[in-house]
Amino acid sequence: MAGTSNVTGPRGDVPKNETERLIASDKVEGTAVYNKAGEHLGSVFNFMVDKYTGKVAYAVMSFGGFLGIGERYHPLPWEKLDYDARLGGYVVDLNAKDLEAAPSYGRDETPWADPEYGRNVYGYYGVPYWF
Amino acid sequence: MAGTSNVTGPRGDVPKNETERLIASDKVEGTAVYNKAGEHLGSVFNFMVDKYTGKVAYAVMSFGGFLGIGERYHPLPWEKLDYDARLGGYVVDLNAKDLEAAPSYGRDETPWADPEYGRNVYGYYGVPYWF
Repeated sequence: MAGTSNVTGPRGDVPKNETERLIASDKVEGTAVYNKAGEHLGSVFNFMVDKYTGKVAYAVMSFGGFLGIGERYHPLPWEKLDYDARLGGYVVDLNAKDLEAAPSYGRDETPWADPEYGRNVYGYYGVPYWF
Repeated sequence: MAGTSNVTGPRGDVPKNETERLIASDKVEGTAVYNKAGEHLGSVFNFMVDKYTGKVAYAVMSFGGFLGIGERYHPLPWEKLDYDARLGGYVVDLNAKDLEAAPSYGRDETPWADPEYGRNVYGYYGVPYWF
């Protein structure tokens, strides 16, 4: 998707604006995620926004799985994602071992209900908690 | 969509998590927008995120149009949107006249390229600019 200002998506040929500073929410979703070595790890599933402050709390990665079976979701602090225009995706400085041990949940789990969950996610990645 | 924790969307039956504080990006997109009188104005098209800070810069409303013809996009400060669980959508305290005069753009326009654009949007709605 990198370098294009219009793509044909599920909603037709729509503006997928991106500036040096801003990126559209629906451009983030589905974007590929790579490690530092350029290996494909998965993609951005969606991200969670604070309703009151408008701050992105987490980006949720989708790693592994086949047709949704066995797919797991990994919440990451937004600060861990770096957009790489050359790769057309996000780069995270994490290896497979880090990710295996990281907080994650299955498609039928709703960990968000626990207010401490976010704190634990940020703690795992060593990023200061955002509120 | 209000009150459901799972909905069947284009990507299948996926977790559409929402807590008192957080909302999923793909739940925001497509959500209906009403005025204070409960009249349907349009829907959230997407929203723009600051790549570096993870702050939502604007929510982009889609008002009017038929099959995308004549559709116009209205960027709004996130602070102008209040989620109403009863309506299952966002409420904005704006009338049709306010919206007609508000900054907007057509599907082939890319106003984001102008760094002053965001400042003008926030100025119109009387909300302090966010960076």
